[in-house]
Amino acid sequence: MAFEGQVITCKAAVAYEPNKPLVIEDVQVAPPQAGEVRIKILYTALCHTDAYTWSGKDPEGLFPCILGHEAAGIVESVGEGVTEVQPGDHVIPCYQAECKECKFCKSGKTNLCGKVRAATGVGVMMSDRKSRFSVNGTPIYHFMGTSTFSQYTVVHDVSVAKIDPKAPLEKVCLLGCGVPTGLGAVWNTAKVEAGSIVAVFGLGTVGLAVAEGAKTAGASRIIGIDLDSKKFDIAKNFGVTEFVNPKDHDKPIQEVIVGLTDGGVDYSFECIGNVSVMRAALECCHKGWGTSVIVGVAASGQEISTRPFQLVTGRVWKGTAFGGFKSRSQVPWLVEKYMKKEIKVDEYISHNMTLGEINKAFDLMHEGGCLRCVLDVHT
Amino acid sequence: MAFEGQVITCKAAVAYEPNKPLVIEDVQVAPPQAGEVRIKILYTALCHTDAYTWSGKDPEGLFPCILGHEAAGIVESVGEGVTEVQPGDHVIPCYQAECKECKFCKSGKTNLCGKVRAATGVGVMMSDRKSRFSVNGTPIYHFMGTSTFSQYTVVHDVSVAKIDPKAPLEKVCLLGCGVPTGLGAVWNTAKVEAGSIVAVFGLGTVGLAVAEGAKTAGASRIIGIDLDSKKFDIAKNFGVTEFVNPKDHDKPIQEVIVGLTDGGVDYSFECIGNVSVMRAALECCHKGWGTSVIVGVAASGQEISTRPFQLVTGRVWKGTAFGGFKSRSQVPWLVEKYMKKEIKVDEYISHNMTLGEINKAFDLMHEGGCLRCVLDVHT
Repeated sequence: MAFEGQVITCKAAVAYEPNKPLVIEDVQVAPPQAGEVRIKILYTALCHTDAYTWSGKDPEGLFPCILGHEAAGIVESVGEGVTEVQPGDHVIPCYQAECKECKFCKSGKTNLCGKVRAATGVGVMMSDRKSRFSVNGTPIYHFMGTSTFSQYTVVHDVSVAKIDPKAPLEKVCLLGCGVPTGLGAVWNTAKVEAGSIVAVFGLGTVGLAVAEGAKTAGASRIIGIDLDSKKFDIAKNFGVTEFVNPKDHDKPIQEVIVGLTDGGVDYSFECIGNVSVMRAALECCHKGWGTSVIVGVAASGQEISTRPFQLVTGRVWKGTAFGGFKSRSQVPWLVEKYMKKEIKVDEYISHNMTLGEINKAFDLMHEGGCLRCVLDVHT
Repeated sequence: MAFEGQVITCKAAVAYEPNKPLVIEDVQVAPPQAGEVRIKILYTALCHTDAYTWSGKDPEGLFPCILGHEAAGIVESVGEGVTEVQPGDHVIPCYQAECKECKFCKSGKTNLCGKVRAATGVGVMMSDRKSRFSVNGTPIYHFMGTSTFSQYTVVHDVSVAKIDPKAPLEKVCLLGCGVPTGLGAVWNTAKVEAGSIVAVFGLGTVGLAVAEGAKTAGASRIIGIDLDSKKFDIAKNFGVTEFVNPKDHDKPIQEVIVGLTDGGVDYSFECIGNVSVMRAALECCHKGWGTSVIVGVAASGQEISTRPFQLVTGRVWKGTAFGGFKSRSQVPWLVEKYMKKEIKVDEYISHNMTLGEINKAFDLMHEGGCLRCVLDVHT
């Protein structure tokens, strides 16, 4: 509480330019304004979306910025009018807000709250359209409304999920993005039924969470597809029952899967972000009812395509963001499920490092063999 | 009954070559074999799918053939083992079969029965892989398992819907294709709810049936989009509340519709068969929940495309065939709804002609100003 109302100077990893190493820097974090929350981030994980924006390929990417969106921490202070959290609360910052009052939140049909998107999309806060981060007076942009590669961050109050204080923050930080995205794609977006045949393209964290979600939903077969056959051993632990490596086949992968499944799968999930794979994922679905869900994020400007006959004959093409979970309402519920050992989290953490090692952590991610690397932000 | 077990010689419109006028010809129609039904066709309408195959652009199109798939008639005789219809029954031939026992029929998820598709797709009957039509010994291919541009036709028993004998065949023949396709796209595939905002691209028979279905479902706004502004007057009678002509706007039509609807429509329907319009129909849907249904049939080889972001942000892309109706089970129900004046049919019939005038009828269809032209097949 010592900092309340004060600027905090702390360490953060600043992305000054695309593709240049992040710089651990003393950053000034302004106090939260009305409707804002300042959070002491304790643990943050790395996700491919951070790497994508960092690469410079994201046309919405702004520099300099502080990346990071999968984290957990403790509320340090709150701005005027913030009632749902208070200093000391354990929280997970949510890049997908939930205001509970906009057209989207009230629709009952989507988790895509629109309340603060106009600000978070351009790296600033809503109230004054400015950043709360600076280095020696130079503003540093926010990222996804979260910017968790910092010892302290400021977020909108509609972007904070208050969780059970007994939950281990070094684990549940993963419930800020990848794991819920995969589980929710299955439970909320596809609504996989017991007995279904499921195909998962890409066996990273999100793909494995899809497999886990499908197993929980009672899927009878969960076919994992990946170019790296070494992933199958790990994938089995998450529910994958069969493995297909496209490199082992001359035919297009959709034909291989259709052949293996008497006409195609009931549900497929693309967890890579590759538009060709998105097409394959749709086309390996069963005629009449097969549903394909796009979970991966494709590079800007890329397009998906298929023959309309694929849809006219009953396949359905959907997508999901944060697995369709309403963030503030449902992240605490996911934390509870983890505490009751109903969902895995620890198993996705392959590496632990410190904020100072963040560049090495990104290298690891690109090398494969890494699921989630969790950074201790204050060591 | 005089012809039972005999070859019938009767008039039919034969398509000998793509794009050449149909020839009214004396055709020999063999008796129905096991599991087959010979029908005296009394009335048939023309549909764009007939014109598409006739044009030669359909790679599955086979010549010479007898086109036609939207008709009504009376069972003349039945083959061995046929139990669900008998001579004298009033029927509508169904290009989409319903066997009630295949994987598709039993799934409860689709109307796309697979029982006879392998034969109907290549213009023959299942039992002997041969045609029942010939002209002086030369076989003439079947089309869509129906071939209704003939005074008599032979179809599989799983492709015959028995209807109320009091229903006027010169009207209810329309319930063999276009009208159910539009109504069902709304009721079965999209499941439009009361209060929804709907966009209909293309105001031909199918598009108008979509509008009618949406009105019945309680849609609050039904926006009709067509390049021919003259269609709006008729469209109002079917429920269209607003009309947009893309020619009146410089912006892409999806942006125009998004602007008119505070973010997009809840449901859109493409009833033309144009892949660019299919994209527009998807992209004019509201973020978070908008669902677009492809109803029109695109030319072979053409592909739909969009940015995957459209789906990741909650839009759903689907398609429909015969509106998702199970043909033998539900066509009789649609006939009942017509008899109770709960759905329109007469209003879609803009012209009446005879089988001998079929080439003129196709010309009319291409000129616009024509919804459905019904041919009296025996005059």
